[in-house]
Amino acid sequence: MQIAYRLSQIQSLSGADQLDGAFEGMITGIAALRDAEPGDLSFLGNKKYTPEVKESRASVILVPIEYQGTPKAGQCFVRVGNPSLALARICGELESQLWPWPEANIHPSAVIHETAEIGLGAHIGPGCVIEADAKIGDRSWLQAQVFVGRGVLMGERCWLRPNVTIYADCILGDRVRIHAGTVIGSDGFGYESPSGVHEKVPQIGNVVIENDVEIGANTAIDRARFSSTRIGEGAKIDNLVQIAHNVHIGPHCLIVAQAGVSGSTVLENHVVVAGQAGITGHLRLAAGTIVGAQGGIHFDTEPGKYYRGSPALEASLANRIHILSKRLPELFKRLEKIEESLLPSAH
Amino acid sequence: MQIAYRLSQIQSLSGADQLDGAFEGMITGIAALRDAEPGDLSFLGNKKYTPEVKESRASVILVPIEYQGTPKAGQCFVRVGNPSLALARICGELESQLWPWPEANIHPSAVIHETAEIGLGAHIGPGCVIEADAKIGDRSWLQAQVFVGRGVLMGERCWLRPNVTIYADCILGDRVRIHAGTVIGSDGFGYESPSGVHEKVPQIGNVVIENDVEIGANTAIDRARFSSTRIGEGAKIDNLVQIAHNVHIGPHCLIVAQAGVSGSTVLENHVVVAGQAGITGHLRLAAGTIVGAQGGIHFDTEPGKYYRGSPALEASLANRIHILSKRLPELFKRLEKIEESLLPSAH
Amino acid sequence: MQIAYRLSQIQSLSGADQLDGAFEGMITGIAALRDAEPGDLSFLGNKKYTPEVKESRASVILVPIEYQGTPKAGQCFVRVGNPSLALARICGELESQLWPWPEANIHPSAVIHETAEIGLGAHIGPGCVIEADAKIGDRSWLQAQVFVGRGVLMGERCWLRPNVTIYADCILGDRVRIHAGTVIGSDGFGYESPSGVHEKVPQIGNVVIENDVEIGANTAIDRARFSSTRIGEGAKIDNLVQIAHNVHIGPHCLIVAQAGVSGSTVLENHVVVAGQAGITGHLRLAAGTIVGAQGGIHFDTEPGKYYRGSPALEASLANRIHILSKRLPELFKRLEKIEESLLPSAH
Repeated sequence: MQIAYRLSQIQSLSGADQLDGAFEGMITGIAALRDAEPGDLSFLGNKKYTPEVKESRASVILVPIEYQGTPKAGQCFVRVGNPSLALARICGELESQLWPWPEANIHPSAVIHETAEIGLGAHIGPGCVIEADAKIGDRSWLQAQVFVGRGVLMGERCWLRPNVTIYADCILGDRVRIHAGTVIGSDGFGYESPSGVHEKVPQIGNVVIENDVEIGANTAIDRARFSSTRIGEGAKIDNLVQIAHNVHIGPHCLIVAQAGVSGSTVLENHVVVAGQAGITGHLRLAAGTIVGAQGGIHFDTEPGKYYRGSPALEASLANRIHILSKRLPELFKRLEKIEESLLPSAH
Repeated sequence: MQIAYRLSQIQSLSGADQLDGAFEGMITGIAALRDAEPGDLSFLGNKKYTPEVKESRASVILVPIEYQGTPKAGQCFVRVGNPSLALARICGELESQLWPWPEANIHPSAVIHETAEIGLGAHIGPGCVIEADAKIGDRSWLQAQVFVGRGVLMGERCWLRPNVTIYADCILGDRVRIHAGTVIGSDGFGYESPSGVHEKVPQIGNVVIENDVEIGANTAIDRARFSSTRIGEGAKIDNLVQIAHNVHIGPHCLIVAQAGVSGSTVLENHVVVAGQAGITGHLRLAAGTIVGAQGGIHFDTEPGKYYRGSPALEASLANRIHILSKRLPELFKRLEKIEESLLPSAH
Repeated sequence: MQIAYRLSQIQSLSGADQLDGAFEGMITGIAALRDAEPGDLSFLGNKKYTPEVKESRASVILVPIEYQGTPKAGQCFVRVGNPSLALARICGELESQLWPWPEANIHPSAVIHETAEIGLGAHIGPGCVIEADAKIGDRSWLQAQVFVGRGVLMGERCWLRPNVTIYADCILGDRVRIHAGTVIGSDGFGYESPSGVHEKVPQIGNVVIENDVEIGANTAIDRARFSSTRIGEGAKIDNLVQIAHNVHIGPHCLIVAQAGVSGSTVLENHVVVAGQAGITGHLRLAAGTIVGAQGGIHFDTEPGKYYRGSPALEASLANRIHILSKRLPELFKRLEKIEESLLPSAH
């Protein structure tokens, strides 16, 4: 990553009012506090790393307004409300330089059905397959080897990475980003077994993904039995996540890697499901629910509450029980001591 | 999903003898009880939703024979033994209309080795790659961008979705369905480390998938070290599942999303492994074993028994321990009280 | 798998000094002790299977030097220090016959940017896409449908299986093997949410994979926010593993299927993470740490120690607590008994 910024550009991109110290050269890299070299931009985004600011060789450091400390000679502190957010905005500018949105193009190796509609300015990369009646919105970017099934409707400025598969009849809003290897619209896992042999329950619904959703790599989102599996506006889903049929993920939820949500469960808005957690089917997780990593939820939750463990409990109780369970050896010893002390009195 | 059925067709497809009420119009959709509009078909498949039948605006509802209640005016109840199964059969009919099995075709962009054999009526979609000596059975459908390695044998009427990878020498029976992104025949995870450096144990066996198996999206099934990893007839495997080398999955097993089975373990017939559960290697799970979600099995199991927890216990014991562990805070208090009560008498 | 070896070849490949008994025919297969037929080679690699040696019909068996027992008539025991390793070397020879490294070739259906550099002897299979400024090292083998993004640097003799995706700017060393469906360099999961709407934190770093790393199927390794996510020399990663942004996996680590490592965590060398385990972010796992299956680590670890459970404890403590927790029903009864015995004395 080769960059070249002046301090004034950093100040402008980060919206900072206050600079401590000065740096006259070019900023040529971004690095963590510990790894930074002269010429690098760094930031204090997590209090855990506060002691590293003093040691850092970075030329420019984004620090919180309230940070106590002064820069070394030739070093500049840029004071901002949220250093992580400020850096995100600087990196966003960089990203658009590194990987500029491509010009309109349809690669000759792409296989596009004659009834498919490709929007203005869309970029369809090599090896893509677009089936009948699919619509690709204006300026959307299918990078390479993407499959878009029959009748899929895709909004504007979507970005689909290589080897993404969108099954027939699914619907994507605007600015949806999907990472490589992810599958949208595979069949839900449904069988009837009247005699011990599993008879398939056809899955003839679809998946609807609303605006501004981002989905990680190698995730799977199943189509509904009928009606729709739905991913709400602005929700963010990480890698290797399983979303089963008929699930509704509310707006602005965060689903971390390797988590799974079973069939027909509803997550209201702003639910956070941490990594490797699992949610049983046919539940409702109220707005703002937080599920800890590896947690297993098998009940409806209350708004804004934090749950941990498998099976899950409210986090404060789960924590107490974890601490007390470490004392089980002591508990058994104390019990034995009491029993022994009571023995003589039984005589 | 646009449909148009008469009540008489629903009756015939569901095998129902008994109708309560009447509906004269066309059935134009399928929806859950709560979401249904006039013109929709709905069903009562889970007792949890019984109260919703009364409120439902569906024109036709599949209900169990023993359901207590009568339809509203202009509404019809179709009484069947198993409403979910009846709906599955209706949807199966619909599915075959929505996505009819394609005509024989080999897309010009497919790359097929001259020694590969393509069965009668097979449909090979765009971007597929079929290596030397592979055989594709009659009427099998490789949708797009599928990879079939050297010497693979595939039966009749298989359906492989986009971006599926079948490694060399694997064998698929008839009517096998594999969803997008799934990998069959990757190397088992085996190394010898005589000096701290891991030396690869080559994996030169294969994977054998018997008739009527369905496998979800982004699942991985490793080839055997030598001999075969085997998936038994009629077994159903969900998304993001890991099946390690030399595992035998018995006939009619169900393996739910994100579960994993370690090397050389044998599942007899009709074992159910729920989501995110893990099975240690070199075990035997007896017929009909059930493993609860997120369970961790590290011992051979007994036929038909239900296990939960990590490490797993028989479910009834696991449940009792979960309930008692929630009472640990109380337990410690009671113990302290006893200890205090005993202190004076120690004087 | 068709093979034909003489005993002398097996002896030579395994480096064995000592043979017990004799077998004059051709060795035509490899099988587990229990499954072997006359003509097969078998091995005793796990003490659990010792009793099966006596019953085995294999013509040649690799056994440990110290194995007590003698071969049947017409059967030969090949005594070696490590039968699994000896078999691995024999199978390595076989593997190179079964799937010989291919001749230099660029398939006409591959789409290769004019600025990409393809090394001497490299084999680029059908449907591959290689973007601008990428470099593919000498003799590397991209099997089919592989995507290599802009500016990727790949060393010599790498083997990438079908449907692998390497995002822009990632770096691979020599002899890296990556199985089908795996994604290298997807965006890390990072958002800032100043007002409840998640604003993307661009991920403009890369992934660096050192020499002799092997990665399984459908795994995802995210690029760093800036700088690099790093996989150390000789590390082996299984299927469906999640490696988050900025993680450093040390040399010779083993990460088993479905495990996950959260952002910025560092694993020193020779760490073993068993299946479905999860590691929280911003941690350091010391050299030789072992994490048990389904374990959840949320603290820095000590060198060479073994941890289990979620949340994890040192394994010896976790085991004791698991055993004691099974006695919770008994514990409650004993407590009640004491309370009852104390009641009369309260009078």
